[in-house]
Amino acid sequence: MSVATAAQPAQAREARAAYRAGAVAPTSGVAHGLVQANLVAVPADWAFETLLLAQRNPKPMPVLDVLEEGRVESRLAPGSDVRTDIPAYRIWRDGELSAETTDASVAWDEHPDLVAFLIGCSFTFEAGLVDAGIPVRHREHDRNVPMCRTSAACAPAGRLHGELVVSMRPIPASRVADAVTISSRFPAVQGAPVHIGDPASLGIADLGRPDFGDPPSAREGDVPVFWACGVTPQAAIMASRPPFAVTHAPGHMLVTDVPDAVYAL
Amino acid sequence: MSVATAAQPAQAREARAAYRAGAVAPTSGVAHGLVQANLVAVPADWAFETLLLAQRNPKPMPVLDVLEEGRVESRLAPGSDVRTDIPAYRIWRDGELSAETTDASVAWDEHPDLVAFLIGCSFTFEAGLVDAGIPVRHREHDRNVPMCRTSAACAPAGRLHGELVVSMRPIPASRVADAVTISSRFPAVQGAPVHIGDPASLGIADLGRPDFGDPPSAREGDVPVFWACGVTPQAAIMASRPPFAVTHAPGHMLVTDVPDAVYAL
Repeated sequence: MSVATAAQPAQAREARAAYRAGAVAPTSGVAHGLVQANLVAVPADWAFETLLLAQRNPKPMPVLDVLEEGRVESRLAPGSDVRTDIPAYRIWRDGELSAETTDASVAWDEHPDLVAFLIGCSFTFEAGLVDAGIPVRHREHDRNVPMCRTSAACAPAGRLHGELVVSMRPIPASRVADAVTISSRFPAVQGAPVHIGDPASLGIADLGRPDFGDPPSAREGDVPVFWACGVTPQAAIMASRPPFAVTHAPGHMLVTDVPDAVYAL
Repeated sequence: MSVATAAQPAQAREARAAYRAGAVAPTSGVAHGLVQANLVAVPADWAFETLLLAQRNPKPMPVLDVLEEGRVESRLAPGSDVRTDIPAYRIWRDGELSAETTDASVAWDEHPDLVAFLIGCSFTFEAGLVDAGIPVRHREHDRNVPMCRTSAACAPAGRLHGELVVSMRPIPASRVADAVTISSRFPAVQGAPVHIGDPASLGIADLGRPDFGDPPSAREGDVPVFWACGVTPQAAIMASRPPFAVTHAPGHMLVTDVPDAVYAL
């Protein structure tokens, strides 16, 4: 397997411009070696509890940037606009998915007090896996990563509570330890796996039918490896029912200009 | 130098009981091998900005626990009371030091909406330095660690801004690299030094007159090594002037039941 070369910020800017113009696709593998981020935006009245939920659950919710009320440009991506530069958004009302859209400007117009949290994404360490010759199956098949709700409760924060969501990558048994080592170097972007093997003890009944993303494409001898996932706040929204929220669509991230190495130990 | 043995939680409980009964002393070296924590408590209206200041300045403000409005017991120390179990407190009004006290219950009575943040303390990795035979000079002389305000601005958060405060330990030149290696294993409790040598370029005019704690007691051949300090929120309080706040007195920490190893990489 050839070793990929890290992308430059110009590639990230091009990707964001394409998404802003309406392109829609999962971002796994886009701008290889640059950090990607999950989004959750809530009304100002819910901002403290959201940040506290992140502080108490740092593996699924490592906060990379916070855009306070009135701000839409992330310092991780100069020139970006968090309302338009993600390929696909989800709009939530009272904990129900209300709409999917490629442009969340209308949501910000409706709720100008939204506070946006950008949360680390496990796509970041996928670059490290690829560079080490560890197969990343969903990339091989040009699919979205499978993501599953689990029975593991997050530590609650005020009105916010919910279960951990995980992303799953089938890894050849001989490379599982390497995948742990490589991902553990990135504690700011989900870090080491939370669970290896046996989906049932995580409360996952059928790995073939993930709650988000595409079904997995494992090969003989692969072991399912589970990482904490930045979709966890979406499960918290469903469980806690805040009046309004905006998130990215699972697998469709904000591509930033920041090299993965900035978050490596 | 003999290698110290890690204390058990019973020692932490005894220490907290003594402080609750009115004992006052710096906590460096108390309950060796158990985590200690800085305190900053603010009215609920300032809680989001305080947590955001921490998120943006994780080296001086690594958050270990948050006690929301109405809570006074930390999960880091079952049975503790954050209002009484720290040896000495500072009460701040409009950014001015208004009083020092051994019992902050009156402050909580006055402001029942206080939200308390417990922040990692560099005393945690001092155990690692001692265990590795690196001299910790202020302990040798039974003094408080020297702490200095610097000219380095923290990343602001809403109404909160201020300069970085550092703690300083003189380290023999031959052991400086070891001190870096050991402390870097504890990113959740200030981690690696922010600055080594040359106090002037940190904006420290006279290392012999620290802003907090006791003057340093360096030996010939020692190099001043600076770590981000959990007194930083107190500098932010002075600069930003929230109407009310409670902090620990510098060097006088909450001693928890949690082993340092929990926060080690």
